[in-house]
Amino acid sequence: MGQPEQSRDVGGQMPPKDTRDGEAFSRWYVAAIRRSEIADYFEPVGGTMVIRPYGFGIWENMQAGLDRRFKATGHRNAYFPLFVPESFLRKEAKHVEGFAPEVAWVTHAGGEKLEERLAIRPTSETIIGHFYAKWVQSWRDLPVLINQWANVVRWEKRTVFFLRTTEFLWQEGHTAHRTYDEAQEETMKMLDVYAEFAETELALPVIKGPKTEREKFPGALMTYSIEALMPDGKALQSGTSHNLGQNFARAFDIDFLDQDGERRHAWTTSWGMSTRIMGGMLMAHGDDQGLILPPRIAPIQVIIVPIPAKSEEDQTRVETAVAALLRELDGGGVRAEADRSDKRPGWKFNEWEMKGVPLRIEVGPRDLANDQVTLVRRESRAKEQVSLDGAPRRAADLLVEIQAALLERARTFREAHTATVDDYEGFQASMAERRGFLRAYWCGSAECEARIKDATRATIRVIPADAEADGPGACVYDGAPAERRVLFAQAY
Amino acid sequence: MGQPEQSRDVGGQMPPKDTRDGEAFSRWYVAAIRRSEIADYFEPVGGTMVIRPYGFGIWENMQAGLDRRFKATGHRNAYFPLFVPESFLRKEAKHVEGFAPEVAWVTHAGGEKLEERLAIRPTSETIIGHFYAKWVQSWRDLPVLINQWANVVRWEKRTVFFLRTTEFLWQEGHTAHRTYDEAQEETMKMLDVYAEFAETELALPVIKGPKTEREKFPGALMTYSIEALMPDGKALQSGTSHNLGQNFARAFDIDFLDQDGERRHAWTTSWGMSTRIMGGMLMAHGDDQGLILPPRIAPIQVIIVPIPAKSEEDQTRVETAVAALLRELDGGGVRAEADRSDKRPGWKFNEWEMKGVPLRIEVGPRDLANDQVTLVRRESRAKEQVSLDGAPRRAADLLVEIQAALLERARTFREAHTATVDDYEGFQASMAERRGFLRAYWCGSAECEARIKDATRATIRVIPADAEADGPGACVYDGAPAERRVLFAQAY
Repeated sequence: MGQPEQSRDVGGQMPPKDTRDGEAFSRWYVAAIRRSEIADYFEPVGGTMVIRPYGFGIWENMQAGLDRRFKATGHRNAYFPLFVPESFLRKEAKHVEGFAPEVAWVTHAGGEKLEERLAIRPTSETIIGHFYAKWVQSWRDLPVLINQWANVVRWEKRTVFFLRTTEFLWQEGHTAHRTYDEAQEETMKMLDVYAEFAETELALPVIKGPKTEREKFPGALMTYSIEALMPDGKALQSGTSHNLGQNFARAFDIDFLDQDGERRHAWTTSWGMSTRIMGGMLMAHGDDQGLILPPRIAPIQVIIVPIPAKSEEDQTRVETAVAALLRELDGGGVRAEADRSDKRPGWKFNEWEMKGVPLRIEVGPRDLANDQVTLVRRESRAKEQVSLDGAPRRAADLLVEIQAALLERARTFREAHTATVDDYEGFQASMAERRGFLRAYWCGSAECEARIKDATRATIRVIPADAEADGPGACVYDGAPAERRVLFAQAY
Repeated sequence: MGQPEQSRDVGGQMPPKDTRDGEAFSRWYVAAIRRSEIADYFEPVGGTMVIRPYGFGIWENMQAGLDRRFKATGHRNAYFPLFVPESFLRKEAKHVEGFAPEVAWVTHAGGEKLEERLAIRPTSETIIGHFYAKWVQSWRDLPVLINQWANVVRWEKRTVFFLRTTEFLWQEGHTAHRTYDEAQEETMKMLDVYAEFAETELALPVIKGPKTEREKFPGALMTYSIEALMPDGKALQSGTSHNLGQNFARAFDIDFLDQDGERRHAWTTSWGMSTRIMGGMLMAHGDDQGLILPPRIAPIQVIIVPIPAKSEEDQTRVETAVAALLRELDGGGVRAEADRSDKRPGWKFNEWEMKGVPLRIEVGPRDLANDQVTLVRRESRAKEQVSLDGAPRRAADLLVEIQAALLERARTFREAHTATVDDYEGFQASMAERRGFLRAYWCGSAECEARIKDATRATIRVIPADAEADGPGACVYDGAPAERRVLFAQAY
């Protein structure tokens, strides 16, 4: 998508969400984010952006949904320093190799040149390793189950709202355990939490599984991820969970006196999900009218639009009905607002559709004469008249239906864009034409993996759980024996 | 308090909270924070610290209390970039003069030297001014009422847990208005929110009022603050609210087309409260046994300590009672935990007292034989036996009483340490001996203010609302006519 366009983005028609044309899709995405006041680029510092209140309201709901799940699985939040001394990054060889090129360095502070330059954290394994080494002395101190909500910085030349930004917001879980098995169990548990969160809250179906050696986190023993499919056929890595083995425990001396009196290195994990998946969710559900927000994370779930009346009596009736609806929806735990501005109803319909509010209630004098209001679903644009009294209950039910319909639609899209291929010509043609997920045999060689990427830009996203269902076969690239199919896609 | 001590802080007796001896008080504070696992210094980067889960749990409760109040007053959250280009800071002359000496600078990123160095935000007025200039076009776009939760960096040589750290967590509200009056109303409203929050949630009584020219925020028209008194007689500025006038609107071109067709500069405000007040709250309420947390922000409000029984039957009875209590307290919205570790009860009593848990319930076989349990208040150490059935209800009531008692105690302390002085010898003697707040006449001259500070380290904290109650008088320093008394103190 290249450099960000100018920020001033005047109104008018939304560009269509043409998913066969990558550039058109990119124009749609940028316009949808800007016009709905979700976010804005900060041109003076390439790669950075502001998350505006409407966008941050989504993130707050996402945070609440994740935080609840983390606490239910025994984790507690903490806050570690932003600054990572360069020597810390260097303690784990693969880690520094992976992150050093993306680091922003503080070299001067308080009017002086620093003795050692400080990285703005690109991730916190090293600084957390330092503290866990102090806090963990005995097997009784384990497990340590901590999460942090924070900003991190990884310098990027290209900018795409949420998907690729220099600074982003995320959570990073960091845990330490007595045994490999416990660390592995934690790694898989949090992968499952991510997948369930993505599907339940964001209506975003994901495929989970381990990464290949080439794609894993720098310093990890194993990396697992959840992968979503975007409307343009590209995959989005949406959350990762790493079994770090004893790599960071060795680098930072996280050791403990075990029950048998032996000193042992702890086994650690880390797992993260960021504002990136928010971008994926926005991409996935929109249409030519703009965004479509899943009700569970929509800051406004129901927008009430009063239709102006001609008589004063009717106008009072409209206003009374709007106030009553707001009160009852709020009492029922529905996030509802009324748009009482002096704009025309048609303008308001477009505006709130563009912003993706899942359900609209139109309250007009004609409907009210029959004690009715009109409900309009954003995702299907289906309309129905319901009684004024029954509207709050019906709205709550429809929100549940809309959430389910969005997940179902995304799942259907993904299935329609997942193909099984056994020949490399077919593989190349698929990647050139409609992309999507390709299930193909891979012999396990890093060279085949690299060559496929060079030729088609497709990478192995994960080795999915059903990888072995088809039994062994021949590598799609070099024909060598392959134990299983893996999941290929071009990726953001 | 000088440089931080070594982090490893072995157990044993807490140092006494001797508030007449500043160094002893400092030892108490550092030990209380460390041993209770609230926070830990990060020696490799002077001035930074980690907030551990028990401390972060307090901050989460504080955040929730503030966030609720911000939203109830019409504000919404957003997130602005961490990096502030140097040219932005320079746009407001007083602002850069105030902040430049404390800035941490990013000079290299992504493997290259940056063309312009970037400040890690010490505060966000400038970057927010840039965006408000884009977002505000017409009087219809006003007011803009946004808050941000973020980390900020101000390079400090000295470190004191929470009170003085290089990186800290805070919220910063930033609003833009059509008129001076609206901006002033907002400034005062948020000052009131801060004062009410400090007293209601933290049991920390504060005095509010405007700062002098010398003490105001760099770039503000007027700064107001809330000031709390610490046990060692020093004041702690605990939250500030600024009317920025049109200073930032002029520097960043935040202008709008007014109703009458004229273009005008907006009037802006900003207001912030940080982890600093958390330090103040911890200092204020502790005693020789350790911390005392106000129930409303305590992560654990009730700790249940089972007393081991000799017979298996009694042991089962204890366990059953503990489980029932936990369930009922939780159902009643009380944050309760049971300490089922294999430590001795006496050890647990000390541990949870040190951590400041407001109420302990002891569940032992002897009490249970009479269908009773023992409740122990942390702040007064008062004990009472209550029936097992009635314990959850009584615990909830006691938490309310404890919260009120802490506020009352802090208020009594403050009153006992607030004096009215009219002669400079008395002023100097008071500041040398027991510090505290001194109400004294001040003629309004910046020179008197500076000389008093040089001689006594006391500054004018605020000009309190009751400043004019005593009528005019003579300046405590030079005897010149003074309209009112102001509030002096040495400050953190």
